[in-house]
Formats: sequence, C-alpha cells, structure tokens
Amino acid sequence: MKLYDSKHAPNPRRVRIFLAEKGIVVPIVQVNLRDNEQFSAGFGEINPFRMVPVLELDDGLRISESVAICRYFEEVHPEPALFGRDPVEKAVVEEWQRRVEFDGFQPVMETFRNSTPGLKGRALPGPHGYEQIPEIAERGRKRIANFLRLLDWRLADHEFIAGPNFSVADITVLTAYDFGFRAKVLVPPEDAPHLKRWHEAVSRRASASA
Amino acid sequence: MKLYDSKHAPNPRRVRIFLAEKGIVVPIVQVNLRDNEQFSAGFGEINPFRMVPVLELDDGLRISESVAICRYFEEVHPEPALFGRDPVEKAVVEEWQRRVEFDGFQPVMETFRNSTPGLKGRALPGPHGYEQIPEIAERGRKRIANFLRLLDWRLADHEFIAGPNFSVADITVLTAYDFGFRAKVLVPPEDAPHLKRWHEAVSRRASASA
Repeated sequence: MKLYDSKHAPNPRRVRIFLAEKGIVVPIVQVNLRDNEQFSAGFGEINPFRMVPVLELDDGLRISESVAICRYFEEVHPEPALFGRDPVEKAVVEEWQRRVEFDGFQPVMETFRNSTPGLKGRALPGPHGYEQIPEIAERGRKRIANFLRLLDWRLADHEFIAGPNFSVADITVLTAYDFGFRAKVLVPPEDAPHLKRWHEAVSRRASASA
Repeated sequence: MKLYDSKHAPNPRRVRIFLAEKGIVVPIVQVNLRDNEQFSAGFGEINPFRMVPVLELDDGLRISESVAICRYFEEVHPEPALFGRDPVEKAVVEEWQRRVEFDGFQPVMETFRNSTPGLKGRALPGPHGYEQIPEIAERGRKRIANFLRLLDWRLADHEFIAGPNFSVADITVLTAYDFGFRAKVLVPPEDAPHLKRWHEAVSRRASASA
C-alpha cells in the first residue's frame, strides 16, 4: 500500500490528518505539484484525473479521491470513528461534511483558483483547462464570510462541527480554513468567539501537524 | 417520520429513487418551490438552509441534506446496499459518488441556476442571495460535455457508474442527467453508446419514476 501525497494541497492534508487521528502509517510518495508532476506521463498512468491524493492498495487498485480514501480506512480501521457511530450520527456527520464541503471548502478553492496568476487556464483541477472567472473569486470571498458566520453559529452550542465528537467534517473545515488563510482568501472574523475556540482546539491536536 | 419533498427539484428525487430501490415508504410533505414556500417563515423553522429534502425523525431530529438522508436509510435498512458492501467497494462508490457530484451534478445545477431568468439573485441555493454569473453557465455547458464523455468512457467496461452494482452514484447521475435534459442545459451526445445503454437501463428500473 502507498499514498501519493503532496505537502502543498489541501486534499492530501485531509487524508494525512485522518490517518494521524487513527494512528495509521502508510508509505508516502510525494508528487511535486509545483513542478506540475501531476501532468507528467508517469502520473497520468496512476491517476488520469491528474489529482492527489491517490491510495494504491497492495493488489494495485487505486482510490483517487480524498474522502473515498478516508472511508476506506474508516472501514478497515473503525476506531476512533470519524464518520459517526450509529445511523443518526452517521447521517449528521454526512450532512455537515457535505455542507462544509459545498459552502466552505469549495468557496476557498474556487476563490484561490480563480484569482491566482499561476493558475490561469487551470481554474478547476483535473485534466481539462478552464479559464479563470474573476467574478467567481469575488463571489467566493462573500461565500467564505457567510460560511465563517455559519460555523460560529453552529459552534456556539456544539463542541465540534457535527456534534460532540471530532469527525471528518472538522478535518474538511480545518484544511479549508488553514489553506484559505495562507492563500489570503480567508480572513478570520473578529467577532466569532466560537469559531476561534474551535480552531484553537483542533489546531492543538497532534493530527493538525500532519 | 416524514420527508419534506418537492417534485420539481433534483435533490429530493435522489432520495425518492433511493427509497424506492430499498422498498421503503415514508410519509411525504410537499414543499412548493415554485411558490417559494422554502422561503416562508414556517419552512425556516424546519430548515434554516431553505432547501429540500429534509427528513424528520420521530424524535424531531431533522436531517437536511439528500445524501445524508440516503446514508441514514442505508444504515437502518442495509439491503440492497447502495453505498457498497465491503471496504473497497464502499471506497469506490464514494470515489465515484463524489466525482459525479462535482463534475456532473454541480455543473448541471450551476448552468441552470446561472442562466434561468427566474433565478436572478438566487444563483446558489440557500438563504444567501448571490447574483448570476453568465460565464459560469457558459463554462458549465463545456463541463457537462466533458462529463458525458467521461461517463461514456467509464461505462464502456462497467455496467454501472461505480462497477458491477447499481449504487447511489447512478442515482446522482440519473437525477442530474434528467434534470439537465429537461432544463435544456444537458445535450445527450450522439456518439456515446455506453452512456445511452446505461441511461436506458437505469430509466427502465421501477425506481426511476419516483
């Protein structure tokens, strides 16, 4: 088994944090996105979608999507549960995981990709070249601000995003938040004490440095 | 238990097809999106995110996201499995479910919402008003064409989207395909025999009329 990874992208970090929470160690192969290694002929054989992370199992099967890789490890290594424990908790984790993906992770990524000069002609990841649309980046900043207000509201009476337990939804938000902050597309709000409390708490977990 | 539903939107249809495949009957409450009932004070109490579907459990807990509702029913009524049976199959279903969501369902919805006159100021679902961006609709048509080519390639050697078994990924594609076709944002390609075979087969299932 091996994991194709990159230190410079948020999706691989989701998997690294997930593995760290479970105490799983997987051999890593670094893919150099800054040198566009994902567009090399060799990597095209590994993932025609030209994205990381990719998990390669011992029989050669490859799973090339971050949350799908997390699901695989949840099944083979259930503890601690990061997708919920019973039907209701699993549904609530899925609800928030999808909400933060669509309303948080995606706005961060679309703002970054549609405003970064080095990504001209690559405004969406993958094999197709799509031109940047500046209006998407402009809208994205409003979406991110709305998202952070939503999180502060949610975290006012929940310890973690999906409820009392740390879950994959927290991992999605943490990776989006930190990537967006470093890329200067996410501005932490001043009047969001619950969000601040949550971000400090999840950042102190050992997994956050993964 | 009851399900807040709408006959005119693709996300509620995902849940209806899912329930039909499992043979589950849930009492339905229709929400009239054409009269903007989702923005009424009453519905705001049910779902502040202003979207359908919403599943209300007997204890009052509400799950307000289509795939999260499907996950709940997968847990309480596992057969037939629609999210995969073993760790690898579950990972592959998740991989394709997310791929078709991001590369198919979303382009159909963003093309529709950014080009439909009646949705001015509501280019994204939910409580926030976002203006339409015509370039997104223009790009969306290219994304949909690329997506349909991807599906034809995938279905050349797989009976269903995620492999040998019908899954939630097929439901996502079917709802996106049919909604996009009726909304005239998706044009079925002429030279896609595998996609045509798949669409005819899944449309013949009893669940497709749900």
